[in-house]
Amino acid sequence: MNTRFYNAMILTMSDGLNIIKDGQVWIENQTIIFVGTDSESKNLMNSIDWDKEIDCENNLLMPGFKDAHTHSPMTCLRSLADDMPLDEWLHNQVFPIEATLTAQNIYDLTKLAVLEYVSGGITAIFDMYINPEAVGKACIDTGMRCVQVGSINDFTLTPDYIEKMYLKWNNDNPLISYVLGFHAEYTTSESILKQIAQLAKKYKAPVFTHLSETKSEVESCLKRNNMTPTAYLDSLGIFDYGGGGYHCIYMTDEDIEIFKRKNLTVVTNPASNLKLASGIAPISTYLKKDILVAIGTDGPASNNCLDMFREMFLVTGLAKYRENDASAVDANEVLKMATLNGAYAMGLTNADTLEKGKLADLIMIDLNQPNMQPINNITKNIVYSGNKQNVKLTMINGKILYENGNFYIGEEPQNIYKKANELVEKFAFLSKK
Amino acid sequence: MNTRFYNAMILTMSDGLNIIKDGQVWIENQTIIFVGTDSESKNLMNSIDWDKEIDCENNLLMPGFKDAHTHSPMTCLRSLADDMPLDEWLHNQVFPIEATLTAQNIYDLTKLAVLEYVSGGITAIFDMYINPEAVGKACIDTGMRCVQVGSINDFTLTPDYIEKMYLKWNNDNPLISYVLGFHAEYTTSESILKQIAQLAKKYKAPVFTHLSETKSEVESCLKRNNMTPTAYLDSLGIFDYGGGGYHCIYMTDEDIEIFKRKNLTVVTNPASNLKLASGIAPISTYLKKDILVAIGTDGPASNNCLDMFREMFLVTGLAKYRENDASAVDANEVLKMATLNGAYAMGLTNADTLEKGKLADLIMIDLNQPNMQPINNITKNIVYSGNKQNVKLTMINGKILYENGNFYIGEEPQNIYKKANELVEKFAFLSKK
Repeated sequence: MNTRFYNAMILTMSDGLNIIKDGQVWIENQTIIFVGTDSESKNLMNSIDWDKEIDCENNLLMPGFKDAHTHSPMTCLRSLADDMPLDEWLHNQVFPIEATLTAQNIYDLTKLAVLEYVSGGITAIFDMYINPEAVGKACIDTGMRCVQVGSINDFTLTPDYIEKMYLKWNNDNPLISYVLGFHAEYTTSESILKQIAQLAKKYKAPVFTHLSETKSEVESCLKRNNMTPTAYLDSLGIFDYGGGGYHCIYMTDEDIEIFKRKNLTVVTNPASNLKLASGIAPISTYLKKDILVAIGTDGPASNNCLDMFREMFLVTGLAKYRENDASAVDANEVLKMATLNGAYAMGLTNADTLEKGKLADLIMIDLNQPNMQPINNITKNIVYSGNKQNVKLTMINGKILYENGNFYIGEEPQNIYKKANELVEKFAFLSKK
Repeated sequence: MNTRFYNAMILTMSDGLNIIKDGQVWIENQTIIFVGTDSESKNLMNSIDWDKEIDCENNLLMPGFKDAHTHSPMTCLRSLADDMPLDEWLHNQVFPIEATLTAQNIYDLTKLAVLEYVSGGITAIFDMYINPEAVGKACIDTGMRCVQVGSINDFTLTPDYIEKMYLKWNNDNPLISYVLGFHAEYTTSESILKQIAQLAKKYKAPVFTHLSETKSEVESCLKRNNMTPTAYLDSLGIFDYGGGGYHCIYMTDEDIEIFKRKNLTVVTNPASNLKLASGIAPISTYLKKDILVAIGTDGPASNNCLDMFREMFLVTGLAKYRENDASAVDANEVLKMATLNGAYAMGLTNADTLEKGKLADLIMIDLNQPNMQPINNITKNIVYSGNKQNVKLTMINGKILYENGNFYIGEEPQNIYKKANELVEKFAFLSKK
C-alpha cells in the first residue's frame, strides 16, 4: 500500500516544533520515503504507483500519539464501578470480574480498545495485561502497534513465561514487541523480582512497573524493606539496563536521583490519578532534573477513556496548579511527551517522527473545526483545545485504520460492541447469583 | 419547524437519571409536545405535519449542556499567550488586544464560539462581555440561546447602561435574556456596587460576578474592606435577590453560610482554574451544604476550549483528588450540575429537562462509538469517557444548529474562521509595530 499525502501542514517533530507548509508525505508500504514541501517533491523522481493520494486540505499531519500505559482488555469494566474507594473498586469489582475473562474475551475487549485508540490518534500502546497472547493477536489482527510489558506478580504468570513472551514477541510480528516488566513491588515477591533482574541482565533489557502510585504503597515498602520502592528495586538490579515506572507520584529526592542516574522514564497518568484519588505527579520537578516523562491513559476502568488529548491538558494544567505557577510545564513540552518521549520509552524510536526512513505511524488533525481556530499557535491549540473529534485519519505501519469516522480494522465496530455488551450482561447475571 | 425523534433512548432528567427506552420526542416549533415510549405515542392523536423525522438509531437524547460561565468573543485570544503568569497574561496580552476589538469583531468572534458550543452539545451560555449588543446579535443570528450578564467595572460601562441592557434584552428576542452583574469586587468601586445593588432591589433580580477566584483577590479585599469579597458584597445588598459567583475557590465558612442563606449558585470553572494556577474549588463542601453548583468553561483565552465534557470530568476528578477520596462528588451529580443546575442559575428552568411544555433545547449523544461502549452505565459513560465527538445533533429552541458534523447557523464556518485569522494577523502586525 503506497500513499501520498499532499496539501498538508506537517509537524514532523524532528526539527523542534517547526511546521512545514504546503507539504507532502510519501509512504511506501510501511515506511515514510519523503517528507517535504511541494517544491522539494518536484525534484524527486517519482516512479511509485500510488494506491491512494490524499488531499489534506491544509490540515495537519503529525506523528501519532504514543499511549505509554494501558490495560486494553479492561474496556469491559468502563463505568461498571466508579465513584468508590480504590481498595473496594480493585478487590470487589476489578479482580473478581477479571478472573472470569477467557482468552477470547480478552481478544474481543482489546479490539474495543483499539477502536478507541485509533479514533483518538493513538498509534502505539504500551500495554500491560495477564494474557499477552490474546492482546498481541488482537493488535496484529486490527493493525495496532503494541509494545507489551510483563505483568507478572505473585498470583499470575512465571519468570519463565515472561522470558518466553519476551523471545516470542520480539521475533514475531513487526507490530508487536515486548518489554520486561512486573505488576508492582507490593504484589511481587523478592524472589520473583530477582529473577526479573536476572532476565534484565541476560538480555541487557529495560524493565517497567507500576511505581509509587499511592502514598500507602510507598509507606508499606518502607516498612517491609526500609527503602522506597524505587530504591528497593534499584538495589535488586531491576533498573540496571534502564526502564522506568508508571505513575511515579510519591518520589523522594533519592528516587529522582536514581531515575536520573539510570536514565529511567516516568510515565504519568493524570486522569487515572485524579479519578482514583492517588495524587498529582511532580512533573515540573522531573523536567528540571532532565528526567524523561511520557504519558499514558491507564486502563479504561480507572480513567475511563483512552484519550491522549485529555491527558495532555491534565499534564500541563495539573502541573500549573501543583506549582502554583501558570507558566509551569509548557504545553509544547507536553506534546513532546505524548509523542517523542513515549516512543523512546517504548523502544519505538523508528516510529517517533515524520522523517524519511521512519515507520509510517501518523495522524491527520482537522484544523477546520471551531476548537482549532483561529490559528495563533497550532501546537498549543492541540494541547489546550484539541479533541479526538479533530482526528481525521490514523495510519499505523503505513495502513489507514481510521478515516473520517470510519474504522478499517478488519471487524465491524458493531460486532465488537455487541460482544462487549454480552459480557456485561453476563457480569450482571453473575453478580445477582 | 416540527420535528419527530424516534427510536431513541431518552434521558429526560425530569425523573432522576431514569432512561426511557424505545422512546420518541416530538417538537412543535420551539416547544416539546411529547416525550414517551413508542407505545405511549400510539395513543396520541397525531395531526402534526412533520418537517423532519429523525431515526435516533437507539442513540441518546438528553437536555443540552448549560455552559454557565463564558466570555465568547475571546476566541481570538485562544493559544495566543499561554504558559505565562496570570498577571502578565491579563495585562500584557488580554487587555491590550481586547481594547482594539470593534463591535463587528466581537460579533464575528462570538459566532466562532457558537460553532464550538453547538459542536459540543452546549445549548445555552451565561456570557459576560463588554459589548452585549454585539454578542446578543451574534447569538440571535446563529440561533444560540444566551443569558447575558452585566460586566460593568470602573473602566467600562455604567449602571445606567446595565439597566438599559437589562430592560432591552429581557423584552426582545426569546433566545436572549439578561442578568444583573459586574466584573468583580476588585475592579469595581463601592459607589458602582451600591448602584448595582439598587438595581437588584428595584427589579428583585439576582446578581452574578467573578468571586474569590484567587487567593490574592480575597486578601486584597480583606485588607481594603476587612471582609471577604462575599461578605463585603452581601453587606452592600448585592445578593439580596439571589445570584451567585463564578469560580468561588477561596471561600470561608462564613462565605459558604451566606451562599446557603441567600440561595446563591456557585459556578465552577475547573479547567480555567488549573490553567491559570488559581486553585481547586471545594465542590464536595458545597454539595454537603446543599449549595447549588453549576459548571462553566470560562473564556477561550483561559481554558482554551469550550467543552463541557472536559469540565465535567474535571469537576469529579479534581474533587476526588482534593478530598483524597475516590468516592467524592459522584459523576451523576456532575451531570446534573452541567444541565439542571446551570439552567436554574441562568433562569432557564423552561429549558432544563425533556418534558412536555419545555423549550426544545436538546442533544443527541452517539452511543455507537468505542468510548461509549460497553453500556454498563450511560450517565457515567457521559461524564467519565464522553467526548464532544459523541455529539451527533444539537437543537436549540426547536432548531437544529448542528448535525453529523454540519453546522446550520446561517454563515459558513470557513467564513468565520477566515475573519478570526485576519484579526490574528492584525494583532501580530500591531505587536510588531
